[in-house]
Amino acid sequence: MAAQGPVEVPRGLAGVVVTETALGDVRGREGFYHYREYSAVELAATRTFEDVWHLMLVGGLPSAADGAAFARRVAGLRRLPAEVAAALPAVARAGASSGPMAGLRSALSLTGAAAGFGPLYDLTADQRRDDALLACAVVPTLLAGLYRLGQGYAPVEPRDDLGHAANYLYMLTGQEPAPEHARAVERYLISTVDHGFNASTFTARVIASTGADLAACLVGGVAALSGPLHGGAPSRALDTLDEIGTPDRIEPWVRERVLAGDRIMGFGHPVYRTEDPRSRMLKEIALGFGGPLVEFAVEVERQVEAILAELKPGRELHTNVEFFAGVVMEQCGLPREMFTPTFADARVVGWAANILEQAADSKIIRPAARYVGPPPPVPVPAA
Amino acid sequence: MAAQGPVEVPRGLAGVVVTETALGDVRGREGFYHYREYSAVELAATRTFEDVWHLMLVGGLPSAADGAAFARRVAGLRRLPAEVAAALPAVARAGASSGPMAGLRSALSLTGAAAGFGPLYDLTADQRRDDALLACAVVPTLLAGLYRLGQGYAPVEPRDDLGHAANYLYMLTGQEPAPEHARAVERYLISTVDHGFNASTFTARVIASTGADLAACLVGGVAALSGPLHGGAPSRALDTLDEIGTPDRIEPWVRERVLAGDRIMGFGHPVYRTEDPRSRMLKEIALGFGGPLVEFAVEVERQVEAILAELKPGRELHTNVEFFAGVVMEQCGLPREMFTPTFADARVVGWAANILEQAADSKIIRPAARYVGPPPPVPVPAA
Repeated sequence: MAAQGPVEVPRGLAGVVVTETALGDVRGREGFYHYREYSAVELAATRTFEDVWHLMLVGGLPSAADGAAFARRVAGLRRLPAEVAAALPAVARAGASSGPMAGLRSALSLTGAAAGFGPLYDLTADQRRDDALLACAVVPTLLAGLYRLGQGYAPVEPRDDLGHAANYLYMLTGQEPAPEHARAVERYLISTVDHGFNASTFTARVIASTGADLAACLVGGVAALSGPLHGGAPSRALDTLDEIGTPDRIEPWVRERVLAGDRIMGFGHPVYRTEDPRSRMLKEIALGFGGPLVEFAVEVERQVEAILAELKPGRELHTNVEFFAGVVMEQCGLPREMFTPTFADARVVGWAANILEQAADSKIIRPAARYVGPPPPVPVPAA
Repeated sequence: MAAQGPVEVPRGLAGVVVTETALGDVRGREGFYHYREYSAVELAATRTFEDVWHLMLVGGLPSAADGAAFARRVAGLRRLPAEVAAALPAVARAGASSGPMAGLRSALSLTGAAAGFGPLYDLTADQRRDDALLACAVVPTLLAGLYRLGQGYAPVEPRDDLGHAANYLYMLTGQEPAPEHARAVERYLISTVDHGFNASTFTARVIASTGADLAACLVGGVAALSGPLHGGAPSRALDTLDEIGTPDRIEPWVRERVLAGDRIMGFGHPVYRTEDPRSRMLKEIALGFGGPLVEFAVEVERQVEAILAELKPGRELHTNVEFFAGVVMEQCGLPREMFTPTFADARVVGWAANILEQAADSKIIRPAARYVGPPPPVPVPAA
C-alpha cells in the first residue's frame, strides 16, 4: 500500500470515491436525493423526524408501533448529564462572542465525555449506536440551553410528550409551538439529515476511521459545518432579503452584484444542475404560511433567476436549500442566529449514521501530500 | 468539476495526493523525515521547541535574538482566558471517566470560543496566525490543569521564565523539573511536531478547507488523534513491558503473541521500512538516563526484532516512536495517562501550520462516495 506511488486526483478530492455507502446519495442532474432507498422529500412529507432517525441509525422505516417505541426511547434521552447541565452556563459565557456553533462544539464534546463515550479501545457497534442515539437526542437541549443562557434566561427542561421538532421549539421559547410551525420545522429537519458526501460528513468519517468515540467524530462534523464555505448561510440569504428591502430595488441590486462578480447568497449549488429539491419543498411550505416575507422572497427568486439566466447563460443557477429554509425558519419564529445550529440538529443524525457505517470498516483514512518546499536536508544553523 | 465521473482510488485514500505542502515530508524507505528543509531529528538535537514552532508557524529558523523574542511572546500567551479557567473544573469533572484527550477536546474548543477565534467570515492570515500561537501556547496549561484537577489538586499557574517543555512539566507537578528531564521532553516534543499526512493532520486540513476558525480545526485534530488506530499507544507500549515483566519471559510471551497473530505494541509503522528515526533518537536519550527500565526495554527490542525477523521474514518490523517515547516519558516523570496528551501538545503546532497552509487555499475538500444500497426511489410506506 505505502509501496505504491502517489495517486493524482482532482483538487479538493472532487469526484474521488472515498467509500461505499448504503445511506443515500444525491443525483445532481435529476434534482433528486435519497436516504437509503427512499426519496428524502417524500419522507419529509409523510414521516416524523424520529422515523427517519430510525431509518438512518437503526435501519428500516419502523412500523407504527416500533416508531412510537423508538420516539419514546429517544425522548427519554433528552435531559443533559448533570455535569453538562452544570457546565452549560460557563460554556455559554465562554462562547458569548463566538456564536452558537462554537458553543455546540464545546457542549457536545463535554456531553460525550460526561456520558462516557470514550476512551474505550474496542467500542462495539451496539455501544456506538447507543452513544449516537444519546448524542442526537441531546443536541436540541444543548442548543436551546445555550441560546437561552446567552439571552439571559434559564434553560427550559425538555418535555418528553412532544416530538423532536416541537420540543426543540418549546425549549427555545418556553412556549408550546403552533402545530403547523412544529411540523414545518420537522419537515425542514428531515430534509436536512443527510446530503451526500459533504465536508462535515467526510470529516466525521475520517475521525471515525481512527476508531475515535462518537463525540470526537460529531465534534469534527460540527467544526466543519461551522466553516462559512460549508454550513454558513441560511441566515445570510435572509440578510440579503433585508438588504434589498423593497421589490423595486431587486433588479438594480442584483445586477450590480452579479456584474461585480459577487455571489448572491442562497443561489447556486455545487451538485444540483436543476432546482434544489429541498428548495422546492421549503418554498411550498413557505407559501402555505403566506405573508409579505414569502411574497417578497418569491419575487426576489424570480428576478434573480431571470437576471442570472441573462448574465450567466448556460449555467443553471436556482435557489438552494438556504434561501427558503431561512424564510420558513423566520416564519416559525426561530431566531436567525439559530439557523445554522438548527441545520446541525438535523445533520447530526446523518453524521452519526455515517460514523457508524465508517466504524464498521477497519481501514484508517490517510491520504498523502506532495512536498514542494526546498529540498532537505539543509544543515540546521546554530541558534 | 462535478460534471466529471467518479475517480477510483486505493482504500483509505492511501497514496492519494490531496495537496501540496511546504511543511515537510516523511521518506519511509530512507528512515528520514523533515520539517521544511531541515532534518527533524537534527532540529531536536540542536534547537528549542520554540525555534521549531517559529519555523513551522512563522516560517524560517529565527536568529538568536528573534528566537528569544518569539519565546517571550508565546510564553506571555500561556495563561487561560478567565472564562476557561473558571470552566476548567467542570470540564475535568465531565471528563473524569473519558480521559484527558476528551478533556483537551472540550477545553480547547472553549478556549477558541472565549478568545474570539470565530465566527468571523473572513479571517485574515494574520488573525489565523495569532490564533494559532495562542492555541499552541495554552495547550500545556489546559492539559496540566485538567490533569491536576482530576487528581484533586488545584492547577498551577504557568511561569513565563521557563521554556515550553520545562513549564509544562512544572505545571503538571508543581516542581521545577531537572534540566535533563525538561530537555529530554523538549527533544521528544520537537520530534513529534509533524509527521507527514496522518489522519489528524488531514482532519484539521479538511475542516480548515471550509474556512472554519482555528479552534474548530484543532479540535478535529485532537478528536482524530484520540482514536486508537492513530494516536493510541505510547502508554500501551509501556504496559506491554509491564506485562512481560522479566527478561526470561520475553521470548515465550512474544512468540505466543506473534503466533496468535496479535500486534506487538510499539513495533511496526505504516510508512517506515527502516528503523523509525524518532525511535533511534529516543532510545539514545533513554540510554543517556540509563536504569533498569531502559535496559529491559532494549532487551525486549532486541528479542522482539529477532523473533519478528524469524517469524515474519522479509518484513522490516522495528520499534516505532511509541516504544522508546514511553520509556523516556516515564523516565522524566510524566504520568502514563498523559503520554498521548503530551504527544498532542507537540502535534498541535504541526496541525496549526497545516491549517494555516490549507486556509490559504480557497478550495473546499469534498470527495465522493458510491451508493451501494437498494435502488431508489421505493415508495415510502405509510406509518
